[in-house]
Amino acid sequence: MTDTKHNKEFEYVAGNGLLDRRLFLKRGIQFGTITALASTVTQLLQAETETAFNSARPPWMTQPGKPFSLYGKPSEFEDDVVRFPTQNESVLGNGVSWSPLHLMEGTITPNGLHFERHHNGIPQIDPAKHKLLIHGMVKQDLFFRMEDLYRYPMQSKICFIECGGNSNAGWNSSPSRSEAGYFNGMASNSEWTGVPLKVLLAEAGLKSSAKWLIAEGADAFNMQMSIPIEKAMDDAFLAIYQNGEKIRPEQGYPLRLIVPGWEGVLNVKWLRRLMITDRPVMARNETSRYTELQPDGKARQFTFFIEAKSLITSPSANMLLKQPGLYQITGLAWSGRGKIKKVDISADDGKTWAEAELQQPVLDRAFTRFRLPWQWNGKKTVIKSRAMDETGYVQPERTELIKKRGKHGFYHYNAITNWQIDEDGYVSHVYDKNENQTLSDNSIDSSWD
Amino acid sequence: MTDTKHNKEFEYVAGNGLLDRRLFLKRGIQFGTITALASTVTQLLQAETETAFNSARPPWMTQPGKPFSLYGKPSEFEDDVVRFPTQNESVLGNGVSWSPLHLMEGTITPNGLHFERHHNGIPQIDPAKHKLLIHGMVKQDLFFRMEDLYRYPMQSKICFIECGGNSNAGWNSSPSRSEAGYFNGMASNSEWTGVPLKVLLAEAGLKSSAKWLIAEGADAFNMQMSIPIEKAMDDAFLAIYQNGEKIRPEQGYPLRLIVPGWEGVLNVKWLRRLMITDRPVMARNETSRYTELQPDGKARQFTFFIEAKSLITSPSANMLLKQPGLYQITGLAWSGRGKIKKVDISADDGKTWAEAELQQPVLDRAFTRFRLPWQWNGKKTVIKSRAMDETGYVQPERTELIKKRGKHGFYHYNAITNWQIDEDGYVSHVYDKNENQTLSDNSIDSSWD
Repeated sequence: MTDTKHNKEFEYVAGNGLLDRRLFLKRGIQFGTITALASTVTQLLQAETETAFNSARPPWMTQPGKPFSLYGKPSEFEDDVVRFPTQNESVLGNGVSWSPLHLMEGTITPNGLHFERHHNGIPQIDPAKHKLLIHGMVKQDLFFRMEDLYRYPMQSKICFIECGGNSNAGWNSSPSRSEAGYFNGMASNSEWTGVPLKVLLAEAGLKSSAKWLIAEGADAFNMQMSIPIEKAMDDAFLAIYQNGEKIRPEQGYPLRLIVPGWEGVLNVKWLRRLMITDRPVMARNETSRYTELQPDGKARQFTFFIEAKSLITSPSANMLLKQPGLYQITGLAWSGRGKIKKVDISADDGKTWAEAELQQPVLDRAFTRFRLPWQWNGKKTVIKSRAMDETGYVQPERTELIKKRGKHGFYHYNAITNWQIDEDGYVSHVYDKNENQTLSDNSIDSSWD
Repeated sequence: MTDTKHNKEFEYVAGNGLLDRRLFLKRGIQFGTITALASTVTQLLQAETETAFNSARPPWMTQPGKPFSLYGKPSEFEDDVVRFPTQNESVLGNGVSWSPLHLMEGTITPNGLHFERHHNGIPQIDPAKHKLLIHGMVKQDLFFRMEDLYRYPMQSKICFIECGGNSNAGWNSSPSRSEAGYFNGMASNSEWTGVPLKVLLAEAGLKSSAKWLIAEGADAFNMQMSIPIEKAMDDAFLAIYQNGEKIRPEQGYPLRLIVPGWEGVLNVKWLRRLMITDRPVMARNETSRYTELQPDGKARQFTFFIEAKSLITSPSANMLLKQPGLYQITGLAWSGRGKIKKVDISADDGKTWAEAELQQPVLDRAFTRFRLPWQWNGKKTVIKSRAMDETGYVQPERTELIKKRGKHGFYHYNAITNWQIDEDGYVSHVYDKNENQTLSDNSIDSSWD
């Protein structure tokens, strides 16, 4: 099990085995510490010698490998690293697919794994036939072909998109049994590139009455969403590229509105129209959905901002720690209000906390990867992460969130997630041990529609 | 053609129509300027009215779209955005595939389009059967299974990898006729995530005689390359993930050595062995290849560093500017020595230069996207970009590079690239007009072996 002799050398920074976040990053690595820690991981394969290693070459070294490809794909040994679709049973094109955050590392979401949310399937748009209309309270209506837009000055931004309905299982009375990504993976992070919206709006010329922009998608659902004109003239842009290549069809090809830090539904895909108005459209996704009845009887509407959130992606639900010893605790944090300032981790169910290392550079309204080495002693415990953003906002415990917001909402769940690790190393989702688990279940229908 | 009345409002920053890099980024956009510029792009489709737009819905709005997918792929309308393989005709698994940089934007290379260089095809490695051996001048030999490595602390770095042979057509006496990416696209940029090599070397314990590390790949070519131990103990790491997901087979699945800023061949794929020695292995790729005979009769060897380079990706070779007016000049710059400090652009064949906007944040040894708006007057001209890195090194003109290095090398070409734009808008690669075009052709065999 653990090496008590060497344990004395470890620099514990909080209860139950949390280690200094810079332990492995220091220039002068303490060899004793490293050796002791690593020896809890490395299985020195005594049966194998260097000679045996040399003589027993694996089959892939004895014959030529596969040829070049025009467009690559992942290894066949990774075919479980996929999105998880949950659809409306009557209308298969209506639903979501979850990004497998628990099987990913770093901060960039590869395009093939970016979460999806569609209302009536994915339109297959011919970009040569796609046009964008800007009209309404403007001095001149403008039509743009895609080939026109390609000539405009562009900007890029690495930022997350999170569906306002992400982690909605957190509102349920019983903890989720899904893997971390299939519970929280309606969030992804890409480098988006396109034309600043303010440039096109300046060209059209806003009338003084202009207060809202209604963005419309070219899908069979004909999505319409309202965005305040201030956001449109601030940092919104019309994305053409995602992670270097043209946006994928399921992400809005050939044109998507990006409103950094605001809830996913506002990042309208397959963008075909921007109508400038003096009032919001009051679409279904602004009235019957994406609103929340608060404990005081009033409903929240036009929430817009994604509040700070974090999630340990490994170890996480349904993983198995095979033996005690060194592990990396890692996860993602993000905030629609700006940069993540810090992420704290607890390995003793919230009694003590230690600050995690944040992957640099920390970017505005983007996924921020956090990491902390951990010496697991083989005993049952709960691990959790808590994000703080640059506004000072701190991610709430679930009990706090429910106290403030009630349980009548289906959206905007950003509470701390607890992962329980049993003595046999199995990881599962649990709610706070002090919480009254007898609260009635969420009365909101959580099916996709 | 151009609007001379409005032209007076433009803020030219260098000859032949180069515009202020912040023109479109300023908070207070000058409406007159924007309108005048944009009107050179926007085809106000007079025949089309808002009413017609509303009534003539495209076919993809009239029927449900395609269903969800487990792993996405690009639009079928983008099937020309692919890598371009050039292989040894006798051994098809020996060659390269070029990344289509001219069709991409932003800085991240999507995994499916990352350039490839293989010597005997792509091994299909079962990660459960893959082991890494660290041995040689160490206190204890260590074997690692992949599942061991997954538990180690990880780090991420967004950085480029460029093959030392990239842009080798630049050494030829005649300008390349290929698209920008198929001439310069043996360079790509990813977020790599993995285990710091110094952690594993510390665990093995380096002997005082240790000076070099020989990295070996598990492919049928059995690649071996030598790396100074200082680099191994500095910032080298063993990557497991690329852009969030496990590395693709053609990029080294399941384990790749990353040596940030150093030539691509040293970033050994399918890593199976790290032998610590007191001398380099003097492999074929260190003796007969990747060396260059200099004008003074001496050969360069163990060059390691990628020097600063830049390339305009649009407009670029074989593109067509359909009419005069506003265009974005954009491209990529990178340096193996650190961050890009600035990129200058000339639209009058080098007579005057203006500083391009750099996409933020500018990262150490990573692709840096540059952009500058440009008002093309419809006349024949040459555009070019020139990078400077944080060491003060300035990308050379081709004539300077040849003067210094001669023409007996096949590798490490980083000269400025000229794109000529004809009066009909067609773009092609040209050498400096002052250069003696009668230089004899490169005597080095440029086939892949």
